[in-house]
This record gives sequence, structure tokens and C-alpha cells, in this order.
Amino acid sequence: MVKKIKGQTLTYQNPPEIVASGSIVGPEEANGPLRDNFDLTSQDPKFNQKTWEKGEKQMISEIIGVTFDKASVTPSDVDLMLAGDLTNQITPSNFVARDFDIPYLGLFNACATFIEALNVGSMAMDGDFADCILAYTSSHYQTSERQFRTPIEYGDQYPPIKQWTVTGAGAFILGWKGGKVQITHSTFGKIIDLGRKNPKDLGSAMAPAAVDTLLQHFKDLNRGPQDYDLIVTGDLGAFGSKIFKLLLEEKNVDLQDKYEDCGNMIFDDSDKYGSGGSGPAVSAVVLGSTLIPDITGGNNNRILVIGTGALFNPLTTQQNETIPGIAHALVIEKKG
Amino acid sequence: MVKKIKGQTLTYQNPPEIVASGSIVGPEEANGPLRDNFDLTSQDPKFNQKTWEKGEKQMISEIIGVTFDKASVTPSDVDLMLAGDLTNQITPSNFVARDFDIPYLGLFNACATFIEALNVGSMAMDGDFADCILAYTSSHYQTSERQFRTPIEYGDQYPPIKQWTVTGAGAFILGWKGGKVQITHSTFGKIIDLGRKNPKDLGSAMAPAAVDTLLQHFKDLNRGPQDYDLIVTGDLGAFGSKIFKLLLEEKNVDLQDKYEDCGNMIFDDSDKYGSGGSGPAVSAVVLGSTLIPDITGGNNNRILVIGTGALFNPLTTQQNETIPGIAHALVIEKKG
Repeated sequence: MVKKIKGQTLTYQNPPEIVASGSIVGPEEANGPLRDNFDLTSQDPKFNQKTWEKGEKQMISEIIGVTFDKASVTPSDVDLMLAGDLTNQITPSNFVARDFDIPYLGLFNACATFIEALNVGSMAMDGDFADCILAYTSSHYQTSERQFRTPIEYGDQYPPIKQWTVTGAGAFILGWKGGKVQITHSTFGKIIDLGRKNPKDLGSAMAPAAVDTLLQHFKDLNRGPQDYDLIVTGDLGAFGSKIFKLLLEEKNVDLQDKYEDCGNMIFDDSDKYGSGGSGPAVSAVVLGSTLIPDITGGNNNRILVIGTGALFNPLTTQQNETIPGIAHALVIEKKG
Repeated sequence: MVKKIKGQTLTYQNPPEIVASGSIVGPEEANGPLRDNFDLTSQDPKFNQKTWEKGEKQMISEIIGVTFDKASVTPSDVDLMLAGDLTNQITPSNFVARDFDIPYLGLFNACATFIEALNVGSMAMDGDFADCILAYTSSHYQTSERQFRTPIEYGDQYPPIKQWTVTGAGAFILGWKGGKVQITHSTFGKIIDLGRKNPKDLGSAMAPAAVDTLLQHFKDLNRGPQDYDLIVTGDLGAFGSKIFKLLLEEKNVDLQDKYEDCGNMIFDDSDKYGSGGSGPAVSAVVLGSTLIPDITGGNNNRILVIGTGALFNPLTTQQNETIPGIAHALVIEKKG
């Protein structure tokens, strides 16, 4: 029997399929370059609810409904839900899970949470502990700003290095049939902290972790950039991506034109969005709306996705702590 | 091949061993009825650090060191760390994980987080994705009070129904050899919300979820109370335990003298602690210090542990939401 773990990388013997993926976004994203790719968009960041927080929950609920339909499954088919988000105590994920009669595991690795969820889900599927899994995540500009930085009404200055938290939610169904792509490997990342302290510059706090996980992934599978059609990070943004590539250059790794960052893809490069999009929803909605269709449409065969997270909160910043970064990766391939 | 999942319950074909378990507590717990059982105690709730939050991290780091020694393993033996806690963005868990060169997955199901971690860990072990796992959790009275309710300096009234967040941390090593007990089954719980709204009364918000998970576990394995030497809930406290037993009575399930609650065990019944202990650390430190030694010492052969969590935050309370409860269970047996 082939060993399933090598270093930090898992190789699935029965790779689960991504049966369906749904994406919903708010007004800023709906006006961005990927506007035509999302399943649902809204010009109302409250999604017809009384508060932003209730709007975030509403957004997740709507896209889960769409995803169930796309996958032709019903809640009673689902063995396990895996979810998490940026809000304190991941309450948007919890409050959505409350509406379903399905076992639930909450996860948190900041903006790497969705890739973490897909990795734990793939492990549960390949390990024969589940036949159908729902993974979802969300982020929300207004709820994040007031929780992590300052309420937007304060009109705080927006430095070019800062990223714009994406308002959006993604839901994926993992199963054994009906999907056109599958998850073949997962790499679980370590925390890397090079001492960055600025909560408005998360890209450079996360980039070293993305480098560490990428190099570990290559080492574990004896692979390199030539083995992938695309290597994509979650939300390093313009500035973080630059650091990511510079750090890789130091290790003599050149990704050439195969590299993208979901945070850079979701907005145009106007000053409004600073260094680009961020939040766990970025990788979820860009994967679901654009990158997976690029595979099923025949443009790519095998991509490597690296979810990136900054594991701080306002109190740790007040207590003069640095910002630890983490990155989890997974490989998505076209079904043979 | 035996099916590994039935309903919500997993049956492990290669049950992982709990190779070692460590427990550390603060001053209140160190003066309680289990005082002689903990590995480490401190009379200083800051654990020689400048802030409570840094103290919480310090406490976790210390008990992980002890647990590695008890298990005779070193960090390089560990494939994966699984951890979570109550603090926003689970920063104590993250900041401890930063000190280790080990892949890390953050989890959050409030006070059910530690049982969630052991369940995900057991799944990873039995699924052949890891050979050695470190699971840890913590909670801290002062950091929790100021985050979830009011800073203790405010002198807010302490109603008898309220529970006392335990200051403590637990660390377990899962592996294949050297342990005297093993995890044979896991049951993943659903969210149950019967509409409770009082953040000072979490026991009655969590009790219905504990009942749901217990009955599901019995159903999935065709078992009943007679199959266990002890059935223990995490932190329902005195009031929540009473509701738990009443709800079970309605279903004609009588646990007789086989039932305990970790939150009730950790403190004496003085008025000071209200309805008893709470926090993810409760089940971790009571299991590690007392319940597992009761098995290895020959008092019990097979116990069922039900971790209980209340998935709210102060903002959801302000927005008039109810408090969802969740409970995850696992079976610990003496090695044959």
C-alpha cells in the first residue's frame, strides 16, 4: 500500500470530487473583472438584512442553496459540514450550520480556512469517514473592518498596502460522482512568523508561509512548477505576491507566468482596493467561479492552490505581538 | 470491510492510543477537589507574564512540554497539531503553534473544541494520514470574562446560574504505542438551538445538543447506558446537567449513577463558582488528570465523553440572536 503521508503532504488513494461549487459576492466584487463568473451577486452589502452580520449569514445561506441544486444533492445526503470565517467565534458559519440537520465542525485558520476545510474534508472522504461533505466560508468588508480595524464610518486612511476584505461566500460539495475535478493532494502548513507587526499589511505577514508550504509541497512530491498549469495563492494581494515571488527567487524557484493570486484577480487595480482583495471568501469564490471552470473548460489540467492566513487579532496587536502566517495547499486535477 | 461511518458515528479500525495527557490549571482549580491530580498548577493567573492573554499562551506551552516528556516524544515526531480555544481568532492556540515546526490546523466549536480536535485527530490517524498528533486547548477566566461578558474589575453581579470559566490547558498525544487507553469511536454532533438567549446561562443552551448527540450515539452503535462505565459531559454545570437529565428522562433514558459533568467535578459547590466550571479546558484537564487515570487504574473500562459548546459571541447577543449549542462525543477504552 502506498503511504498516504510524506512530509506534510497527503496523497489521496480515492481522491474526492468537487461535485459542485457556488459563489456569491457583494457590490464591489460584482463590479470587478470576474463579474460574469459568480452564481449570485448583490448590490446590497446587507443582503436585505438588518445588520451586516445578519447579511453575511444570509449570503452564505443563499449560496449553499444554489450549490445543493448544482450538485443535485439535498441536505440529507450530506454526512458532514466543515466551515469557518473571520468573525469572532466564527458565528456566521455557526448560525448557518444551525439551519441544517447535519453534523458540523468549525475551523479557523483565518483566510486559509477554506483550503483547511477542503483538506480536512478530503481526508475524511479518502479515509472512508464520509461520502458527501459540504464546505463553506465567507468574509464581509464591513463586518471585518469594524472588528479588526476601525468601523468604516470613521473614515480611517486607507494606505496602498492595505487589502480590501472581500464580501462573498463560497460553498463546495465533495462527493464521489458527478464532479469534473478532484482533489488529489493536500499539504498542511506550519506557522511562519518573520516578525511583521502591521495589521494593515497582511500580505507580507503571509507570504513567507506561502513560500514555506509551496517548497514543502514540491519536496514531498518531488515536483516543481513544471508539474502545474497554474499555482495560485489565496489573498497575498499585489504587495504580498511581490514578496512571495522575491522569496522564491532567493530559493531559485521561478514560477514564470504560471502564478496568480486570487486577491489580485477579484478587483481591478484601482487605488480604491489598496493591495487587492483578502478574506477566506477570496479563494473560495475565485476557485468556484473562475479557476475550476478553467479546468473543466479545458484550459488547465492541474492546479495548486495555496490558501494563506494571518493569525492575529486586535488585542494581540495592542499587546505588541507579531503576526503569524499560515498556508495550506491542495491540488485540483481534471478527472481522467 | 466494516463500514467506518454509521449515522453520525465513526468506528475506528485502528483506534489511536492516547499516549500521554497533560493538564495545567490556575489558582481556583488548584484549590478545588481535583487539586492533587493535575500535572502543573499555578497560583498566578498570569503565569509570570505581563498580561492574562500572554499567561494563557504560557500555560499551554508549559503543559505541552510536560506532555511531550510523559509521551517520550519530541516535536519532530509529531505529524500534525490540532488546537483551538475561546479567544477571538483562537490566538492562544495560534501563538503556541508558532513556536513549533509542525503543521497546524485551528479548530473552533467553543467548549466542544477539544473533543472536536481528538475526533479529527483520530480520523486522521485511523485514515493513515498521521502517526502522531498533538491536540491541545485552553481557557482562562480573566480573558474570557472581559471578552464575552464584562471585565472582572467592573464587579458585575454573578448569578447562581452562571458558570466560572476554568483557567487551564490540556495537551494530549495520539499515537500507536505506549498508551494504555484508546479512542474507539467518535460521534460528530449537529447544532441544536432551543432558543435560549442568556449568555450567563450557557448550560441550558448546550444541554439539548448533548442529549441529541448522546441519543444519536446510542442509536448508531445500538448501545445504551449499560455499555459504559461512565458517561461524562464537558461543561454543562450544575444547572445544565439537571436539564440534560430531565430531557433524557423524557426520552426514557436513565443514566443512573453513571453520569458526571467535568464542570461539576472541577470546583466544590460553593456559591463562588455559580453553576460550575466551563471552557474547553474543563474536559481536557478533567479527562487528562482524573478520568483517564481512572481507566488506567482499573476503575473503569469504557467511558463516553461528550464535549459541549455554546456558539455565540457578544455581538450576536446584542443583535438579539439565540445561542446555538453543539456536542461532539468520543469513546475511550482501556487497551485490551
